[in-house]
Amino acid sequence: MYNVKCTVEYDGTFFAGWQIQKNARTIQEEIEQALSKIYKTPIKITGSGRTDSGVHALNQVFNYHTRKFIPENSITSGLNSLVNDDIVIKNTEYVSNDFHATKSATSKTYEYLILNTAKPSPFYRNHCWHISDNIDTDELKKILELFEGSHDFSSFCKKRSMVDNPVRTINSICVRHIRNFLKIEINADGFLHNMVRNIVGTALHVYRKELKPEIIKDIFDAKDRSAAGSTAPAKGLYLKKVYY
Amino acid sequence: MYNVKCTVEYDGTFFAGWQIQKNARTIQEEIEQALSKIYKTPIKITGSGRTDSGVHALNQVFNYHTRKFIPENSITSGLNSLVNDDIVIKNTEYVSNDFHATKSATSKTYEYLILNTAKPSPFYRNHCWHISDNIDTDELKKILELFEGSHDFSSFCKKRSMVDNPVRTINSICVRHIRNFLKIEINADGFLHNMVRNIVGTALHVYRKELKPEIIKDIFDAKDRSAAGSTAPAKGLYLKKVYY
Repeated sequence: MYNVKCTVEYDGTFFAGWQIQKNARTIQEEIEQALSKIYKTPIKITGSGRTDSGVHALNQVFNYHTRKFIPENSITSGLNSLVNDDIVIKNTEYVSNDFHATKSATSKTYEYLILNTAKPSPFYRNHCWHISDNIDTDELKKILELFEGSHDFSSFCKKRSMVDNPVRTINSICVRHIRNFLKIEINADGFLHNMVRNIVGTALHVYRKELKPEIIKDIFDAKDRSAAGSTAPAKGLYLKKVYY
Repeated sequence: MYNVKCTVEYDGTFFAGWQIQKNARTIQEEIEQALSKIYKTPIKITGSGRTDSGVHALNQVFNYHTRKFIPENSITSGLNSLVNDDIVIKNTEYVSNDFHATKSATSKTYEYLILNTAKPSPFYRNHCWHISDNIDTDELKKILELFEGSHDFSSFCKKRSMVDNPVRTINSICVRHIRNFLKIEINADGFLHNMVRNIVGTALHVYRKELKPEIIKDIFDAKDRSAAGSTAPAKGLYLKKVYY
């Protein structure tokens, strides 16, 4: 039995997200269909986690098991010839049988991209959040640092998606200004549903003085989604890297 | 009578080009419909020139005449609220009545964007030409310089679109390597239909030794489209600036 690990980049704009669902185009289904053609038998894949509709990935990871050996490069090129061009398989490798794309992950980095210009860009309309008022990187960074460390992130989790243990540890939040873009990179041992988008949305409320910085502690304590600010749009979010 | 000049950026991916045509989505029509709503009377616009289906613009220019005064910023914001988000009006100004977006143009710059990486990018799939074999910027520049100056560009013009005077002057061709991209900027007093795409396509044939550099003179002399190389894809082409 072989265990195959693939790294994939995708533009999530025209997908209903990663996970297979009825009557909707999903990344998982498109890849499984391609693999099933290559192996001439149904193949099921396991992603490192789901991404929502409109959310992108620079390096999503999935794995699958198969009895048939195919050279790594042939899997990569075979997949790329079968999937649509909003999915690109970047790398394929054989890994030990105990590797599990979800369970083996030790941390993940998400990037949130903001286009900070007076006018929006037609080219980035599906790939960032456009904010026209000038954002001070250092000010925003100070606010975002309040989220670092271990917290019960219930107030930043989509209500319907609550989990038994909502404590997550944010190892680092990095904010960089690159040309007209603000890039917010968050590395954590795991993420709850909509966690990055809710953190970014809430941080911008604080930045705009619609919420006081002191209130962030109260929001954590409330353990209630309605205590925090609004959700930043999906189109600015990228799964950047999964660490194993 | 007022003469209004607008600068517009658009993603040409989902348009059948600039110019109005039946049963197809065009940039000109979308803007004219928006202006006609704003002015509550039909408005016809004149572009600096057409762009083909899939071709983009960073700064296309158009003008129109009207008897009604509306502040510049209100025209810009009004238009942006009415057009879809693959069109963004960047600037509006009142100009003298003799300004004509096509006839007043003294030169134009087009940019051709090549993504030069081993794998394509799902995010740039409609916005550049992906070429996986490594391109040497200096080598390509040497080949492209053979196109500079005044020439009869008949061999680089779409056959059906021949004009009476096919002589154009290329003032400069600039090739730059920026991160993973090659940007080819061509400034000329005017362009024939598909001229940039045919120059780029032919230059790459020469670069790959499929054509000898010496043959470019013969291609010019042939004054026949079939003498030159293939046409680079529309998705890499941007109308960058119109000079008046």
